[in-house]
Formats: sequence, structure tokens, C-alpha cells
Amino acid sequence: MRNAGNPVRKPRIALAIGDPAGIGPELAARMAVDPEVNDAVELTVVGDRRVLERGAREAGIDLAALRQVSVRDLGNLDPGTIRLGVSAEAGGRSALANFRTCLEIAQRGDADAVCFTPFNKAAMKLGEPSYGDEIGFALGVLGLPGPASEFNVLDRLWNARVTSHVPLSKVASLITEPNVLRAIRLTDASMRAAGLGEPRIAVAALNPHAGDGGNFGHEDDAIIRPAVEAAQRDGILAEGPFPSDTVFLRAQKGAFDAVLTMYHDQGQIAMKLLGFERGVTLLGGFPFPVCTPAHGSAYDIAGRGIAHPGATRNAILLAGRIAAARAGAEAQPALA
Amino acid sequence: MRNAGNPVRKPRIALAIGDPAGIGPELAARMAVDPEVNDAVELTVVGDRRVLERGAREAGIDLAALRQVSVRDLGNLDPGTIRLGVSAEAGGRSALANFRTCLEIAQRGDADAVCFTPFNKAAMKLGEPSYGDEIGFALGVLGLPGPASEFNVLDRLWNARVTSHVPLSKVASLITEPNVLRAIRLTDASMRAAGLGEPRIAVAALNPHAGDGGNFGHEDDAIIRPAVEAAQRDGILAEGPFPSDTVFLRAQKGAFDAVLTMYHDQGQIAMKLLGFERGVTLLGGFPFPVCTPAHGSAYDIAGRGIAHPGATRNAILLAGRIAAARAGAEAQPALA
Repeated sequence: MRNAGNPVRKPRIALAIGDPAGIGPELAARMAVDPEVNDAVELTVVGDRRVLERGAREAGIDLAALRQVSVRDLGNLDPGTIRLGVSAEAGGRSALANFRTCLEIAQRGDADAVCFTPFNKAAMKLGEPSYGDEIGFALGVLGLPGPASEFNVLDRLWNARVTSHVPLSKVASLITEPNVLRAIRLTDASMRAAGLGEPRIAVAALNPHAGDGGNFGHEDDAIIRPAVEAAQRDGILAEGPFPSDTVFLRAQKGAFDAVLTMYHDQGQIAMKLLGFERGVTLLGGFPFPVCTPAHGSAYDIAGRGIAHPGATRNAILLAGRIAAARAGAEAQPALA
Repeated sequence: MRNAGNPVRKPRIALAIGDPAGIGPELAARMAVDPEVNDAVELTVVGDRRVLERGAREAGIDLAALRQVSVRDLGNLDPGTIRLGVSAEAGGRSALANFRTCLEIAQRGDADAVCFTPFNKAAMKLGEPSYGDEIGFALGVLGLPGPASEFNVLDRLWNARVTSHVPLSKVASLITEPNVLRAIRLTDASMRAAGLGEPRIAVAALNPHAGDGGNFGHEDDAIIRPAVEAAQRDGILAEGPFPSDTVFLRAQKGAFDAVLTMYHDQGQIAMKLLGFERGVTLLGGFPFPVCTPAHGSAYDIAGRGIAHPGATRNAILLAGRIAAARAGAEAQPALA
């Protein structure tokens, strides 16, 4: 990490402009002139400068203020071609190019973290039919084998999952002891790398009532519990499996720093009810943090300048804190 | 319904004392002298009078006041044998006997609805090893084939589910068009029977992002959507399938009267975060309503007189409203 020799330098964040038909340009422009962001990090916006300027106009930001901002202008999208609120191939392609460029900048050490304003999945698929999700795309660009994982961060609570974008019918077969243990370790390592000390990780059960002693499924006792115990033997503060319909109530009260869920909706139902629209999605398992606001591209309010910037700001600040914690850790002499 | 000829008579509720080692006796005693309950319904407490009196002492209720109350004394449990906070065979057996008696009273028309204070599943199984859940037990006592279903009611929002106490690995195979359609119809019929007019029912998707057009599972498009459309052709106000991680946010804002979920935790995670501890569980598909508070037997606070009576009161009042609506509907001339 290039920061290591100079721990007081602000973390450098490469921010990709997301889908141009949504609220991505407006949010990127707001971040570029956000005092809190500029206090905490050194931001470079990556994308087409004209699209960023369109976002600034939407947000009522003076273009003169925007000229102070570091922009890596890819000149890859004429804003006159954008139809607000409509997924388009050109828009998806530009968002992917912006993201790819950010990843490459960070990979060669010229940024300490990557952020992006919201993507639109349909546009991404139009732009690149093989596109699956951000994690697979980023692993491909960086030439990494994984594992990588998505974390949802809401205030102090983290949520990770063992399986994600798979049919519910496939979930149980993917809940193996190695998969659960790997996810616990990745959660623990990502949170330690974020400077969170020793995170207390609650592991959710797969089955209703945690299987009710085997009446409603054997995986909780036969697979998840041994994985939790193996993690505990490694010194990880994991506990569980806990019934998933009460574990978030306990986490909300502060009993845990993270909840590891077994499948997508198990965590997302809870996190969205807890207010995750203002939260942050963090991709873990990469050599640098990758963060984005939890909400989507909000086609319904695109171009109106009313998108709330809080989650995007939280994403950039979290990326900055993680980058700083990593730089600090690397600046310390290694323990024997 | 015996009320039909005299719609001004209060609905008659048979209330079973639940597990005696928990908060059930105390809650039954509070209900027996609750002004709001006694205004709305004609309550008969079913169980051992000595256990009810113990509950009254725990709750600080004058035993003289209790003497005004209608009690069906089964004389089936010496309170001196109860160990608070411990599941016991005798306690489970008494709770089941109380419940059975209530069901029989309602079946022969001497009550319009059945309620019970919380059961303890472990004690029920000790008391009757073949015991599965309240629905199976009640169907057995009443000699009914089903279908019956559990509804969770929180303020104005109802939640029902297509599958319940089954392993997650079995859920997808149980999501068939007939099963989903049956659950939609039962939800609609139960809510109409409760006097709720034409309920707006949101049907949750099975897979993440409702299957994302088939990328994450085919059931949402191939099974759930046709079931919703079939229900719509019957005049039911069903919609969906909707991604389950946002449908409760919409329901919370009033967009729907009910959410039909595909599996246990899909609904329970949401309902518990929304405050379901103060909600009501209603068994639907029976000739009379069966209601109980959503919370459990709370062994940790048993005997201390501090259990909050709100959810039990809500259960009795809901049972009373449904019984009254049914009686009213039956008192109307049938439409051609």
C-alpha cells in the first residue's frame, strides 16, 4: 500500500460515475464538492466529464466549483444520448468502463479504494451480456480467483452472506462446512482490516427455529454449528447458529457487530427494514475496499436533483476509513 | 353460528390457560379482569382454577375480583407441582387439555372463538410426543382435513405463508401452483371472514430479486405468477410476486393489507423486526377463529407479574371482531 510510508496522507478514492440514466451523475457531482468527503479523502471522479457536469446542473452545483475537482475524463458518453430512466447499452458500457478504470487505478497503487455511484443491472447486461454482478466483474478485471463477498454495512452493523444470487432451491446444497467457515473467516478478516478490532459475528441458522433440534432440517446442527466451532478455535468471536427471525433484533440492540446469513433474502429482508437504503455495500476479499451506496439507480427520480446523498457519502467515508486502517496496519512492524 | 339470531350479543371466547411454567397463568388472570376485554367479549377461562389463582397472585389481582369470572375448572394441575421456567410433561399435558376443551366447546357452538395464552413447545411434546404444532393438533381434535394456516397479524398487516415448519431445503419443492393458489385463497377468505372487505394481498417471491428474469430461479415466473393470475381471475386483489426484501417496506407504508410469504423466516424476519412481539397469531381455516399472542411463554420472566398483556388482549379482541363479523355475515340474507 503506497500510503504506508506516509500515514497522514488522505486515502485516495477513485469514484466511478454509475449508470448515467439514473441518479449516478448527480450523486458523483455532489460528492465531488462535498466538504465532509473532501476533508476525509482525496477524491478522483472517473467517467465522462460532460456527464458529471450534467449531474452538477441537476444538483444545482456551480460548474466553476466542479472545475476544482480531480476528474479522470474518459470521454466515453455524450450526455445528449442519454434517456433518463431508461436502461441503455451505451450507458451500461460507460458505467462498466468507469468501474474497470477505477479498479485498474487502484490495482496499480494510484488509488487506495474504489467507490461507484449506483449501477443499473439491466443496463450493465445490455452493455456486456456476460456481466453477472460487481464481484465477478471486479475479480475478472483484477485477475483474482476469489473468494470475495458482499458486505452490507448499516451504521455499526455488518451483514455478509454465504450464498447470494442463487435460486432458493440451491441454497441448502451450498451450505457446507467449508463454505460457512470461509464466509466467517472472510467476515472476520474484512472487519479487522477495516479497523474494527475483534468483531462479534452472529451466524444465522438455515432452517426455521434453527432446525428445532432436527425436526425442521439437520444443517444447523450438522454443518453450521461445527463451522462456528472451527472458527472459534481460530480465535474468531463467532456464535450461532441463531434462529434468523430473532438474530437481527439482537444485533440491532448491539449484541453483535455482524450477522452472517445463509442466503440473500435472509439478510436483505432485515437490513432493508432496518433502513439499509442509507447503508453501504462493501465488496470484501479484494486488495483494496470497494464501496457503493446500498440503494439503486432510482430511475424514478433521475434528473430531478433530489437524490439523497447520505448513503454515497457513507460509502466513500467507509472506504476511506478502511483504506486508512489498512495503511496504518501495514505501517506497523509485523508481529512475530 | 349461534350468534346469528342475536347480533348484539357479545362474542363468547373460550380462553385456554397456556403453559403453566411460563407467563400463561398470569396473562389469563389479567385478561379475566381486563375492562377492555370484558367490554368486547364474554370470556370463559378454561383450565385449573388453582393455576389461574396463582397467576392472579403473580399479577397482583385480587382473588375476589377473579370470583366474578367465568371459569371452566378442569382441575387438571396442582400448582404446587409447577417449577417455573422448566418445561414439564404435566404442564404440557394440562395446556393441551385446556386447548382441547376450548376447541370442543367452540365446536359444539358454546363459544364463538378460541384463544390461548402462550404454549411451550417442548412441554407440549413431553405431554404428547406426537404433538407437532397447534394447527395439526386442532385439526385432529376437530376431525377436519384442512387446509388450515397460521396468520400473523400486526396492527393492520397480515402475514401468511405457503410453507412453514419445514427444512429450507424442502421449500422450493413445495412451492407449486396449487399450493400457492390455495394459500392466496385462504388468506383472502380468512380476511374477508374477519370483516376486512377486499384485502390487498402482496405475494412474495421465492428467489432473490424475484428470480431476476430466471437468472436466480424459475419459480417466481413459472409457478407463483400464474397462481397470482389465477387468483386475480377469481376476483382476489392479489399482486406479485414481489422481491421479498422490499415487499414489507411497501406493506408497512400501507400499500397492502397482507403479505403472503413462501417460507417461515421470509415472513418472520420481517414481522419480528416490525414489532410482532405485540402482534397476534391467528389460525385460519377453522369454523371459528383461534388466536394467541405472537410472543412465547417467556420462561425467563415467569412468575414475576411483569409480562406485558397487550398482545394477549389484541388476540382476544381480534378473535372477538372476527367472530362478530362472521355472525353478522351469517345474519345477512345470502346474495344470489
